[in-house]
Amino acid sequence: MTGGEAFREMKGFFNPRSVAVAGASKTATKLGNVVLSNLLRLGFRGRVYPLHPEGGELMGLPAHPDLHSLGERVELAVSVLPRERTQEFVEECAAAGVKRVIVSAAGFGDDGEEGRRMQDRLVEAARRSGMRLMGPNSVGTLSTESGLATSLMTLEPLRAGDISIVAQTGLFAGGFARWISSTQRFGLAKVACLGNKADVDEVDVLSYLGNDSQTRVIAVYTEGLGRGREFWELAREVTARKPVILLKGGRTDLGARMAAGHTGSLAGMDAVYRGALAQAGVIQVEDLEGLFGCAKALSYCPLPRGPQLGVVSITGAGTVLAADACRRRGLSLPPLREGARRRIARSVPAWAPLGNPADIWSATLSSGVEEGYREVLQAMAGQEDIHMLAVLFTLVPESEFDAAAVLRELREEHPEKPVLACFLGSSREDGERWFDSLESIGIPVYESIERCVEAAWALARSAERRAFGG
Amino acid sequence: MTGGEAFREMKGFFNPRSVAVAGASKTATKLGNVVLSNLLRLGFRGRVYPLHPEGGELMGLPAHPDLHSLGERVELAVSVLPRERTQEFVEECAAAGVKRVIVSAAGFGDDGEEGRRMQDRLVEAARRSGMRLMGPNSVGTLSTESGLATSLMTLEPLRAGDISIVAQTGLFAGGFARWISSTQRFGLAKVACLGNKADVDEVDVLSYLGNDSQTRVIAVYTEGLGRGREFWELAREVTARKPVILLKGGRTDLGARMAAGHTGSLAGMDAVYRGALAQAGVIQVEDLEGLFGCAKALSYCPLPRGPQLGVVSITGAGTVLAADACRRRGLSLPPLREGARRRIARSVPAWAPLGNPADIWSATLSSGVEEGYREVLQAMAGQEDIHMLAVLFTLVPESEFDAAAVLRELREEHPEKPVLACFLGSSREDGERWFDSLESIGIPVYESIERCVEAAWALARSAERRAFGG
Repeated sequence: MTGGEAFREMKGFFNPRSVAVAGASKTATKLGNVVLSNLLRLGFRGRVYPLHPEGGELMGLPAHPDLHSLGERVELAVSVLPRERTQEFVEECAAAGVKRVIVSAAGFGDDGEEGRRMQDRLVEAARRSGMRLMGPNSVGTLSTESGLATSLMTLEPLRAGDISIVAQTGLFAGGFARWISSTQRFGLAKVACLGNKADVDEVDVLSYLGNDSQTRVIAVYTEGLGRGREFWELAREVTARKPVILLKGGRTDLGARMAAGHTGSLAGMDAVYRGALAQAGVIQVEDLEGLFGCAKALSYCPLPRGPQLGVVSITGAGTVLAADACRRRGLSLPPLREGARRRIARSVPAWAPLGNPADIWSATLSSGVEEGYREVLQAMAGQEDIHMLAVLFTLVPESEFDAAAVLRELREEHPEKPVLACFLGSSREDGERWFDSLESIGIPVYESIERCVEAAWALARSAERRAFGG
Repeated sequence: MTGGEAFREMKGFFNPRSVAVAGASKTATKLGNVVLSNLLRLGFRGRVYPLHPEGGELMGLPAHPDLHSLGERVELAVSVLPRERTQEFVEECAAAGVKRVIVSAAGFGDDGEEGRRMQDRLVEAARRSGMRLMGPNSVGTLSTESGLATSLMTLEPLRAGDISIVAQTGLFAGGFARWISSTQRFGLAKVACLGNKADVDEVDVLSYLGNDSQTRVIAVYTEGLGRGREFWELAREVTARKPVILLKGGRTDLGARMAAGHTGSLAGMDAVYRGALAQAGVIQVEDLEGLFGCAKALSYCPLPRGPQLGVVSITGAGTVLAADACRRRGLSLPPLREGARRRIARSVPAWAPLGNPADIWSATLSSGVEEGYREVLQAMAGQEDIHMLAVLFTLVPESEFDAAAVLRELREEHPEKPVLACFLGSSREDGERWFDSLESIGIPVYESIERCVEAAWALARSAERRAFGG
């Protein structure tokens, strides 16, 4: 198969021109109906065919008894049928010449020997006819480009963006998709929730996303890579163009045992994974917060020209904790050079020389909060060997100012330097207001110093990979 | 000094019957005015005396030119004067027989040799007259019992509770106090922000809080313990009665250098600290989120009778990541015994046997979400060697139910078992609604699996300390 064919094969899972849904019901609360209503609510731009043995109408759409009666070979079939009826439907798909099917039922490779045999039969039927199968135990895909969602969880319209996610779990097409839409400002391109990965796996999807023009940042949650070598080779190639962030679930023996249970994955040994993936330029994080936090920074910010950080904080404790976090992440904080010192000297009393991290409390007392931040940030940004800036704020009325204006100005002068922000304590209202004002101009905001520094680290890692990798 | 005298000495920093504030101004925006307006807004129950050389009136209060003219020996003096006028005021306090002073000005021990000499002179003046000095570079204290706040940041009224905080940084009496009031449901008892710790230090305050009846949980942020041995001995004694959670800033060489700069603290070597403090029963966390997250659990929950956890999740990935987190924290997850299995068998299809962590997705498909959670949680809670429960939710419309009712019922039957909750993805509105409904019945809620498990670990550590320590 050529690269172009493989790309089109996967593309049909995200942007199909037509979808058939098996398992929708005349009872409104069934899972199949959630799929249909999501497709309607999210404005899917292709044709939708509900399948129902009795025909009739489902959610305003004419239902067909089976794939043969559609008069069209659909690009994607989605099965929300119970486990017992899945094999038959997959064979129907194969017979009808359908090339892609998503199977949501569980109780296959995730459930012992018998389940594994049933899963093997599904895959056999698919492979015989050259059909690709996503799942079983998969809620499938989201695509903001086509408006497709095959999730079993009710979704609200999704914001389009440049972050794509490949995961085993359906969380990313359910609770987290809702969380992103309603609390975050970044947007999604494509999401794939692969479930048991009996056929379609991370290698297939990563290969597609690596060439998908909407996708600029790729986040992966995996509990075990079946094709480790292929993933490694592919990742090495993709990370030279787009950052790939990865969270491995099942990194401890206990976690690995759970992973084996719920998707039938064999979790590889942690140290082997980590070394190989790091070598391939993959940014590895420890938890879901890290996955989202790093993806956001990589989506919003330019890649820095080097790994060194300047930190500005209105509190001393912020400088201490940021220094600890930078040291743990291996990020260096260059000292302020003569030029920067001279500039700062204008706005800071002589008895409080600033370093990096810079504690600007004294500067704000003598020059006001806005002037304190502006002067020190400008001085740092003007220093060549400071490649990124992390700005720590505490949101109290005394330190209220138009930070977005100051940071916008800073970025206009230094567009090549990423700027990240961190809030150390704020009321709910102030926090939301500042979050919106900074994120709307593309500055990623964190509520934790460690998360902010982790994101800077991810930027540095990705920049290093882009500069030296390939 | 007797224990009772030492207690009263410190108590006057939190619940004084009278306070004099030096540095308030007729210009409304000055820091001294923030102190006065906080005292008024928070309803301080003692007498307030603004000091101003010209007398007159400040914020509706009669101002006095100096302490001598008050006609009363105030229990607490607060100096918001600039550095240059601080020595003189401390001497005035000493001469007027004042026994406690809080000094906010910076530029002392935090600023090189000259600053350190100036700081020594402050302390000398205080000690000569038997006065205790908090600071310099300190924003002082909060007390919900008396309504006192000496913070330089505008505060809204604070919720009373049983968590007390000792910190070097003023963050806890500024941004974080606002954050707690407006986004959290736990309340504060006392907060002390010690700054340079030229005189009053963590040992003084911990000793007081250990005996303060309002305080049940103590959180400490320190960048270096000047009296390490005394702190260790005292902590060993206090942790046998109340949990002490501690975050050490400046644990890396880089962080320690920053700490030396901003409060003049000498940060001790990390390994020595950690071993000794663990031995004293202190719960050590890695970041501010850990400090708040553990404090909340210790405030809300009973101490478990053992360290073992049961985990229930509606998503498989939740069980994998929870298992990883438990393993890393050394928390064990006992397997389900025969009794629990029998009970669960009623509501779960035979092909999906549940373990611990329990992935209840199948159970919810066959029995509904509410029944799935209730049956599995009840079965786990009924198992003797499961001492705590962590419940993971994803908040999508399909899994909506009255979780508070189910968990309340669970706790009524098993009041000795802490229950913690974690949300994996939700819309802002659903998240806030569920947060309020669960936290209002005393169930601590986390938005991260690792934070939830960390809090369970803190409960286990504290219970172990209480059972074996002393």
